[in-house]
Amino acid sequence: MIIPAGSAGPEPHLPLGAGAEFDAIRAMLREWGPRASGIGDDAAVLDIPAGRHLVASTDATFEGVHFRREWLSSEEIGARAATAALSDLAAMAAQPLGLLLALGVPESWQSELVELARGVGASAARAGCAVVGGNVTRAESMSLTLTVLGTAERPLRRRGSKPGDLVYVTGRLGGPGEALHSLQSGRVPAPAHMLRFASPRARIVEARWLADAGATAAIDISDGLGADLAHLARANGVTIELDVARIPCMEEVTPDEALASGEEYELLVTFPPTAEPDASQFVARFELPLTRIGVVREESGEPVRAIGARVDPARGHDHLS
Amino acid sequence: MIIPAGSAGPEPHLPLGAGAEFDAIRAMLREWGPRASGIGDDAAVLDIPAGRHLVASTDATFEGVHFRREWLSSEEIGARAATAALSDLAAMAAQPLGLLLALGVPESWQSELVELARGVGASAARAGCAVVGGNVTRAESMSLTLTVLGTAERPLRRRGSKPGDLVYVTGRLGGPGEALHSLQSGRVPAPAHMLRFASPRARIVEARWLADAGATAAIDISDGLGADLAHLARANGVTIELDVARIPCMEEVTPDEALASGEEYELLVTFPPTAEPDASQFVARFELPLTRIGVVREESGEPVRAIGARVDPARGHDHLS
Repeated sequence: MIIPAGSAGPEPHLPLGAGAEFDAIRAMLREWGPRASGIGDDAAVLDIPAGRHLVASTDATFEGVHFRREWLSSEEIGARAATAALSDLAAMAAQPLGLLLALGVPESWQSELVELARGVGASAARAGCAVVGGNVTRAESMSLTLTVLGTAERPLRRRGSKPGDLVYVTGRLGGPGEALHSLQSGRVPAPAHMLRFASPRARIVEARWLADAGATAAIDISDGLGADLAHLARANGVTIELDVARIPCMEEVTPDEALASGEEYELLVTFPPTAEPDASQFVARFELPLTRIGVVREESGEPVRAIGARVDPARGHDHLS
Repeated sequence: MIIPAGSAGPEPHLPLGAGAEFDAIRAMLREWGPRASGIGDDAAVLDIPAGRHLVASTDATFEGVHFRREWLSSEEIGARAATAALSDLAAMAAQPLGLLLALGVPESWQSELVELARGVGASAARAGCAVVGGNVTRAESMSLTLTVLGTAERPLRRRGSKPGDLVYVTGRLGGPGEALHSLQSGRVPAPAHMLRFASPRARIVEARWLADAGATAAIDISDGLGADLAHLARANGVTIELDVARIPCMEEVTPDEALASGEEYELLVTFPPTAEPDASQFVARFELPLTRIGVVREESGEPVRAIGARVDPARGHDHLS
């Protein structure tokens, strides 16, 4: 399918054959309606507008590693998986163009495919892109591997911060971590925390505003504020001085907990000291806080140095540990 | 990383953090050397040359479903997974641009990551593209989900055949199916069959030759000649008349077996009767046969009609059954 630049509507799909694999795909296509485009060829065909770069990322979500069936609805699982991938486009300030969905499906999940698809479709729609391809295969455990394609005139990179730059974060942190902690302990999470855990948002339009406002570098918070600050610092060969008292925490969340809370999908961005973003304009536009939490310093032996409190910023989770 | 159009070399990677996930990525990057480019940002940044479309496809390979550890080396498993994905670019006559690798890794496979990476890197190098991104996560069973990005000025689609068009196939069929059958029966496959099973090739340059020669539509053979002829026929709303006696079979393979042999990654293409390709030139150039095996007819109730023998062309495998 060719989606011309500025195209308004989806392209038709190709007729599919017989069999369980194609039945599953047909059911998902019915669910997606116009949110899927040109499915059925060997590959998707898309157009990159002149003057823009292709931005691409892939992200996998496995049952038992990234989610548990008893904690989330299938629709939430699908939506979260797509949001996690789309958040990587947000971190580059890219405009989503399309999404490819690879599903590994055990027998016990076959009845859930339409619900999963509904969630993926909802996240794609929020990000303004369509499902343009995918793969469905039998597997021992449920997994969703999302590849997102986007475009950007000037992608916002992880590298670009200089000593003296100011570090900002979007949103209020700690909800996903606290919800996860409650669920793991058999407690019912606070509703506000659970909402952030079950229905995170990729900060697509916010990222483009930040890039236009002059951001020098960005990363999304997937491993936790502390770990992702360290990733940002290492990528730039700097030390980030973090003012712990300024971390925007959700209610009933300590700065220490906010530092370790992963899967936030909020953005960490740096700005030159001469070009501070207008946080009040950001809040007014997106109903989301934008908070200065630190400063970029010359590298001094550690990626993140906390000031104003005794916490260990070197926390977060590691997907292989 | 930005790979400018026509760029000669890979872009540097970003410094990675501590932990098992990053150790695994570092080990793979050492193995890939210049075959990986610009790893470590939230997403890959690539350039699509002016006048060309982006072509993208994703393909997943799971242990126990698509391969067994005792049948193939880890390097072969990596190479096959990448070839399966790259073959979808071949089916569109696209030029590979980059590859994203998502790995689900159980404990028992962690020591094999470099070997898997070697295989993926070898297939990428053969296709003339680099590994530009990926994802490594813990999982219950080993899986490789490859997303391939390519470009084409005029992508060769699955739809495009008209009644009267001639149907061609590259290569000689049946090796992968016969090797699989032997392995499943506890027998040692014939070496020639095993080579086609363990080390298939994506027909990238062959596909571009066929497109330039005037091919009207194409599909790669992943489900089996019979099943993929049916996919091609359905996509075009036609019936394909298959001359079974003309199917190019490997030694010790019957036409019936060749029809059901999947994971061939040979190409099925159609040409107008007024523009038959020069098969002898194709053979001379690629050391691979190009064989006319059928004709496209007006749709007559069945996607594939076999002539010249009594076989059931509606065979092949279904990844969800």
